[in-house]
Amino acid sequence: MSAPLIERTVFVVSDSTGITAETFSNSVLSQFEQVKFEAIRIPFLDTLEKAAAAAVRINRCADEQGAPPLVFSTLVNQDIAHEIRSANCTFLDLFGTFVQHIETALGMKSSHSVGRSHMGGLTKQYHDRIEAINFSLAHDDGQFIHGLEEADVILVGVSRCGKTPTSLYLAMQYAVKAANFPLIPEDFDRGSLPATLLPFRKKLFGLSILPSRLAEVRNERRPNSQYASIKQCRHEVAEAERLMRMENIPWLSTTTKSIEEISSKVLAEIGLNRRMY
Amino acid sequence: MSAPLIERTVFVVSDSTGITAETFSNSVLSQFEQVKFEAIRIPFLDTLEKAAAAAVRINRCADEQGAPPLVFSTLVNQDIAHEIRSANCTFLDLFGTFVQHIETALGMKSSHSVGRSHMGGLTKQYHDRIEAINFSLAHDDGQFIHGLEEADVILVGVSRCGKTPTSLYLAMQYAVKAANFPLIPEDFDRGSLPATLLPFRKKLFGLSILPSRLAEVRNERRPNSQYASIKQCRHEVAEAERLMRMENIPWLSTTTKSIEEISSKVLAEIGLNRRMY
Repeated sequence: MSAPLIERTVFVVSDSTGITAETFSNSVLSQFEQVKFEAIRIPFLDTLEKAAAAAVRINRCADEQGAPPLVFSTLVNQDIAHEIRSANCTFLDLFGTFVQHIETALGMKSSHSVGRSHMGGLTKQYHDRIEAINFSLAHDDGQFIHGLEEADVILVGVSRCGKTPTSLYLAMQYAVKAANFPLIPEDFDRGSLPATLLPFRKKLFGLSILPSRLAEVRNERRPNSQYASIKQCRHEVAEAERLMRMENIPWLSTTTKSIEEISSKVLAEIGLNRRMY
Repeated sequence: MSAPLIERTVFVVSDSTGITAETFSNSVLSQFEQVKFEAIRIPFLDTLEKAAAAAVRINRCADEQGAPPLVFSTLVNQDIAHEIRSANCTFLDLFGTFVQHIETALGMKSSHSVGRSHMGGLTKQYHDRIEAINFSLAHDDGQFIHGLEEADVILVGVSRCGKTPTSLYLAMQYAVKAANFPLIPEDFDRGSLPATLLPFRKKLFGLSILPSRLAEVRNERRPNSQYASIKQCRHEVAEAERLMRMENIPWLSTTTKSIEEISSKVLAEIGLNRRMY
């Protein structure tokens, strides 16, 4: 694959955080590999004055790049949307395009209210999510073994295989209480799971990684250590996978996967259907 | 506002993680307050066999609820999309609807490739993100003061005002190295910022919170303690806000805001334009 040849600025505009519009724009634009996109996020666009200023910025960009920029919008306020739409741009109205279909399907009108999905700092759901983050932090790397019975899932695997970011993502995005616990050389010598985990066998989910990748990651942390040597990494990974197979722990390899992919697969495997935030 | 009266199941289908489709469906459905939606996520829908099984599930749901369910799709593979579309549902094709507009605007064809936005566990961007998460974890709650010069932002505020989840979200979603540092009674007695922070004054961003809300949050942690008393909370919040004003530290109140809103505002205020993951 050759390097991107074209650079284009895109705008992400929203009455609220702009997170939905940005997530969407990232996904859809990743299908245009020939272009390098720079996204300019304009969140909390909630007055006509701000909209006018944003329109000026969009027009200036159109002049500079000699092409109308793409604008991904989740604007709900129609007056503000109209102001942006009047700029020299390709306006992609994410909500408007679908709200009408959904209204027809449901046989009711939408409330046209702004930014409700990331609101509600005081709701029960929000509280559960903060609790899950606190839980995952407290139970990172096996540091706190009390309360494991409250865990929705306990990730296990060798040091630096991706347990911590995955646990935090599960907590942050899905309010899943995800603990994680390292499998270490002592466990392999003994040939069994850490005793602490035995009562929670059904909650265990394993992460593994290619030894060559593990050696890279560990070398950044502790260059040229025995811990980071390919020999040690091969040994630990082989032993961890053997243990997980022996104990019938479901597991997956994180080597080429993003935190999102790992988390999504873990949720699917453990059969949790949680609302995403 | 009265309680929701109608319950409806929606499906979120994707060749990849389904995160984009789910984020989008949450946002747009939050505009239909009269309905309680339950989302069934079907990620990694990448074979015709899986698609046929999903179609059966959608049809069964249509029969049970007496109405065709909404299906939010980011399916890129057209054969798989066709299979789902043939079920009894209102099919909302998030990518297809916009890809053609974007192709026209850019004057080029999309690659129609699956799930590229959450891929690439081995890219530089991904590496930066993991580094940011590690940084934010290591610099949570002022626990590690070396390396603060590498921080993109240092959040300050009283204990339990929302610094930790915000730091982690900034790292996870934007690869921002976000440290956080508590403002404690000793600082207020002395009437100045912690000495550790003085060299990094320009990186500081304050979070505050209503005393009544802070007392609630602290009471869950340490019920009936002096730490959680409304008197103590009022005192700490007043002192922290005084200190932030005196030191010209930009700050905002987290009381009714979600992690997403706080993070989005912090990014806008400190002028960081980071790619979202």
